[in-house]
Amino acid sequence: MNKVKVGIVGLGRIGTVHLKNLSNQIDNIEVIAVVTPSEEAQQYAKEMLIPIVSDKFEVIANNDEIDAVFICSPSPTHAAYIIQATQAGKAVFCEKPLDLSIEKIEEILAEVNKSKQPLMVAFNQRFDPNFSKIKETIEEGRLGKLRMVKITSRDPTPPPAHYVKSSGGLFLDMTIHDFDMARFIVGSEVKEVYAKGHCLIDPAIGEAGDIDTGVVVLTFENNVTAIIENSREACYGYDQRLEVFGDKGMAQANHKQKDQVQILDTQGVHSARPLDFFMDRYFDSYLHEANAFIEALLQNKEMPVKGEDGLKATKIALAANLSMKENRPVLLSEI
Amino acid sequence: MNKVKVGIVGLGRIGTVHLKNLSNQIDNIEVIAVVTPSEEAQQYAKEMLIPIVSDKFEVIANNDEIDAVFICSPSPTHAAYIIQATQAGKAVFCEKPLDLSIEKIEEILAEVNKSKQPLMVAFNQRFDPNFSKIKETIEEGRLGKLRMVKITSRDPTPPPAHYVKSSGGLFLDMTIHDFDMARFIVGSEVKEVYAKGHCLIDPAIGEAGDIDTGVVVLTFENNVTAIIENSREACYGYDQRLEVFGDKGMAQANHKQKDQVQILDTQGVHSARPLDFFMDRYFDSYLHEANAFIEALLQNKEMPVKGEDGLKATKIALAANLSMKENRPVLLSEI
Amino acid sequence: MNKVKVGIVGLGRIGTVHLKNLSNQIDNIEVIAVVTPSEEAQQYAKEMLIPIVSDKFEVIANNDEIDAVFICSPSPTHAAYIIQATQAGKAVFCEKPLDLSIEKIEEILAEVNKSKQPLMVAFNQRFDPNFSKIKETIEEGRLGKLRMVKITSRDPTPPPAHYVKSSGGLFLDMTIHDFDMARFIVGSEVKEVYAKGHCLIDPAIGEAGDIDTGVVVLTFENNVTAIIENSREACYGYDQRLEVFGDKGMAQANHKQKDQVQILDTQGVHSARPLDFFMDRYFDSYLHEANAFIEALLQNKEMPVKGEDGLKATKIALAANLSMKENRPVLLSEI
Amino acid sequence: MNKVKVGIVGLGRIGTVHLKNLSNQIDNIEVIAVVTPSEEAQQYAKEMLIPIVSDKFEVIANNDEIDAVFICSPSPTHAAYIIQATQAGKAVFCEKPLDLSIEKIEEILAEVNKSKQPLMVAFNQRFDPNFSKIKETIEEGRLGKLRMVKITSRDPTPPPAHYVKSSGGLFLDMTIHDFDMARFIVGSEVKEVYAKGHCLIDPAIGEAGDIDTGVVVLTFENNVTAIIENSREACYGYDQRLEVFGDKGMAQANHKQKDQVQILDTQGVHSARPLDFFMDRYFDSYLHEANAFIEALLQNKEMPVKGEDGLKATKIALAANLSMKENRPVLLSEI
Repeated sequence: MNKVKVGIVGLGRIGTVHLKNLSNQIDNIEVIAVVTPSEEAQQYAKEMLIPIVSDKFEVIANNDEIDAVFICSPSPTHAAYIIQATQAGKAVFCEKPLDLSIEKIEEILAEVNKSKQPLMVAFNQRFDPNFSKIKETIEEGRLGKLRMVKITSRDPTPPPAHYVKSSGGLFLDMTIHDFDMARFIVGSEVKEVYAKGHCLIDPAIGEAGDIDTGVVVLTFENNVTAIIENSREACYGYDQRLEVFGDKGMAQANHKQKDQVQILDTQGVHSARPLDFFMDRYFDSYLHEANAFIEALLQNKEMPVKGEDGLKATKIALAANLSMKENRPVLLSEI
Repeated sequence: MNKVKVGIVGLGRIGTVHLKNLSNQIDNIEVIAVVTPSEEAQQYAKEMLIPIVSDKFEVIANNDEIDAVFICSPSPTHAAYIIQATQAGKAVFCEKPLDLSIEKIEEILAEVNKSKQPLMVAFNQRFDPNFSKIKETIEEGRLGKLRMVKITSRDPTPPPAHYVKSSGGLFLDMTIHDFDMARFIVGSEVKEVYAKGHCLIDPAIGEAGDIDTGVVVLTFENNVTAIIENSREACYGYDQRLEVFGDKGMAQANHKQKDQVQILDTQGVHSARPLDFFMDRYFDSYLHEANAFIEALLQNKEMPVKGEDGLKATKIALAANLSMKENRPVLLSEI
Repeated sequence: MNKVKVGIVGLGRIGTVHLKNLSNQIDNIEVIAVVTPSEEAQQYAKEMLIPIVSDKFEVIANNDEIDAVFICSPSPTHAAYIIQATQAGKAVFCEKPLDLSIEKIEEILAEVNKSKQPLMVAFNQRFDPNFSKIKETIEEGRLGKLRMVKITSRDPTPPPAHYVKSSGGLFLDMTIHDFDMARFIVGSEVKEVYAKGHCLIDPAIGEAGDIDTGVVVLTFENNVTAIIENSREACYGYDQRLEVFGDKGMAQANHKQKDQVQILDTQGVHSARPLDFFMDRYFDSYLHEANAFIEALLQNKEMPVKGEDGLKATKIALAANLSMKENRPVLLSEI
Repeated sequence: MNKVKVGIVGLGRIGTVHLKNLSNQIDNIEVIAVVTPSEEAQQYAKEMLIPIVSDKFEVIANNDEIDAVFICSPSPTHAAYIIQATQAGKAVFCEKPLDLSIEKIEEILAEVNKSKQPLMVAFNQRFDPNFSKIKETIEEGRLGKLRMVKITSRDPTPPPAHYVKSSGGLFLDMTIHDFDMARFIVGSEVKEVYAKGHCLIDPAIGEAGDIDTGVVVLTFENNVTAIIENSREACYGYDQRLEVFGDKGMAQANHKQKDQVQILDTQGVHSARPLDFFMDRYFDSYLHEANAFIEALLQNKEMPVKGEDGLKATKIALAANLSMKENRPVLLSEI
């Protein structure tokens, strides 16, 4: 393959990000089909000069020219599209989560395995320049033997309660990125999960049966501990930090501020807020993950994030749910 | 009282810090007696022109001129000296811990209460300019309603295994500062403790029955969570950080570096390590805590850190020990 | 006008930046013609689906559909293209410099004035988020009455000596951006110029009659002083800083580093180099300046950087040349 | 000599700093005499248990026990005391300036040379941890061949106009520290001086014949350029920065803030002002310079700052005065 022909299903916020990146920023790739039920989104795709625009997934699944499918549609549709696409012999890039249920994910993975088609789960944060630099730093041995990983992830504003209801809860919806990040960074598997949560921000979230503030302690098989802390709201911006501590050093990925200006006055030194929109904060990561998928296809390499990674992060999230419910550490083997 | 006459018992590292600060940096105070079994330390006290130098605590306890006693001797002697000093009508400044056992501490507090003498427990970190500024920031309401407190405390080098043996263990010896800090910052009482620990640094510490790497999750009665992370060794210096997150803002006390020089070269931007000696890192806090004690005496005010604070931090440490042993969250009421 | 049709002449490094930005990132605009003598560049333009691709400027000048021309060709061609384009009734966006000679620039401006067509000179750094934020901070009055402006501009690597020969010299080629920035920030006109330069980096630059290290002190009519410091080489990256000091505060635009990762080890704290490629460092500024030009056209507003700004920066550069030559402060009125 | 006996003349702000440092912080030294006309200061010295307290310099000059004199009295008295002390066979530590006139300084140096007694001029900033670290960095070769030095020195608040009148003017009173710093850092001698100044802060300073805002460009014999920028007032604190740029790297000494706390809220990231009192900002430097003097005496080493350094800095200041007056670059050889 020396040029990848892509179909995209779903053209909401994240689908649009991928469409733009694939069209303008990534070489050796052509988006030839977009599927979306939204007439407005269809109109947008036409203005982008996409040859095939439809509301039927079949225009992708049945098109032999298409090599790869980006699945950016709502989560409940992921399983069906993945299976349909891989059975049609296409590589799949799927937004997280594959599904909220372990059984369903295992079914997906079984189908994918059967088809031998490549599947990448879009844990975009692995491709963030800060976090991927820390990963490289670890691999170069600069931090030595790891001891402790700390992840802080706080959203700028909480989602509406109705979103929360169908989200699977904080751990499955938001912390899942951090579970994947912890596995990515530690390079070992989780043994035990202890989770604690509170509803401190929006009572409606609590009424919807969820929490908005959470802490998870992960113990890995290699005895590294990871501490994850989440909040659905941070008035000062979108706070995404990672700290990794080893016997030879420590690495910290700090806030990504809007600019590099400091103002000094009688009150002190002032600088800009951290970026507060996920597409600004993770702009690079979306580009790099799509690029990594395309590169892996073109060079026939292993996918950088596999279906199993999606399964494992989901299992940790379910263990966190159980831990919080029963207020006890839960072995991952219980899930 | 317009001048405080002080006796100091114990002239090791910390006793010497207090002797220097009291002699040179704090007004309205005179050190008139030093008690220490070490001949070298006695010699030093004489060179400092201290009028009474002895190896007998009685020269302090029986001296009617002395208003206040600084107890800087080894931990197992604290209880007896506190009781003797308060019974002799003296105010007491005592290094932590009051004792390692709850029963003994309660006995001490009962005696102190009977005597009506002021007792201050030396949790010096409350007086560190970074941490006390965060406390003020909270009290001014700038952070709003608190949600989460994160404390990182990593020593530059681990203690010898023989020290560890008689220390009471990581949580009683090292984390106890952080337990007090968490209570100080949150302004509420701990409800539940979950602790996890590993021996990753020095196997001799493990053989001595202790851990060198620990994580504690404290749940407070007001639903604030505090996460404490400790390590007995950090190759990059003495790492003492605090982060407090509320609905109106977040405060972070960062590393205290040796200087403010940045060097930029082909490899990047380089600056100095964090300070790596506790007396450099906490130089100000020792001065400010002694000052606060003297001020409280002179102005007949409440002690800024009370005996009960020592008791409560110890209870949290014992709850952490139990939690780690039984691998379950422990209610503080169980202790 | 509700959509701007653009022709681009010149498709080297900077022309390509504009072509990409105009094609992918800016709304209400269409690039319908590209003129370049390079066959490779023509091929690239065709792949970008540009309708008209040619090596003759006439396809732009004579095309009535085209509203605006981006002149990105070599400097010596600017004058002729500007005059031809404005006479043809087109708005012009011209890369700096308009020309190296005052007489020629005045001739250009006379023609532009006659034609009443808008002309924008591409001092892109005005649109850099750091520098434009400082400008806003000044306009909001947060810095009070200005006293001092300091500009540091150091390139990562020196140009080849043959480039230097036809560049007009450091002050006309490189410092000209800083002269414009100083005027932009101070909001007053330069009264006096003192310049000093050395050849410390590459003797070939000296042999070509130029300097590679320069300092200029500008005194403005409002008595603000601006200090500009330039170097053709900085081993640690592309160093572009601005500091503005007023009676109510000070603003500093610092280095733009590649990422936000800090690594702490036994040697200290380490972070990434400043960005070292002008297109990474000024990526945003190119986008924002093109956007500002298009916005001004669509809304029939004044151009944000005018032809006169180009003239004035050039005069300052010539005064700097004279000052260095005669080693004395030179009044701008002498030029 | 294995213990230095010291007399101090002058017990104002700076004399008191030295008295405290010598008494409490520096080993192998004893202050045995203090001379001051102030009764309050005499009282203070007695409370510090200084054996000899007087208002007559003779109690120092005629005391054979005294090895060294710290001259901390008003500037016009320096010359006489230095000469008297050195003739009496004592080492001298003298606050800056030696004198405001070149002739007088040369007379002092001639006398000191004759006496063969050590003389140190108290350019304390050389001993600031930030600046001395940069000096070491240069000496280790980490910055390579130097190209440019930038010094920013802004006082928090302007002196009263009556002080300004007898101060010798900004360049002799304030910039003199920076002239010495530039020589110290560059390691070469100044060839040419260009100075520019304005009165922008307090018209009374202008009426007193002085400026409050100054810029000096120094060209060194080795073609390094130093840019010094001074202001008598900075509302945001005491701003003392140094930047050194060489072919292998760049070093920056940044603001020294009061603490390491960052507060993030909806408005951005906020931290403390730079320290705003010279004794806080330069606390360490005063201690280190006194220590360096005592060390040099005890080990019979060369003085780290010599009388000639005082002379040279004064010449540069006079050249700056002439340059400003005649608005032209002045060769140091003209002075």
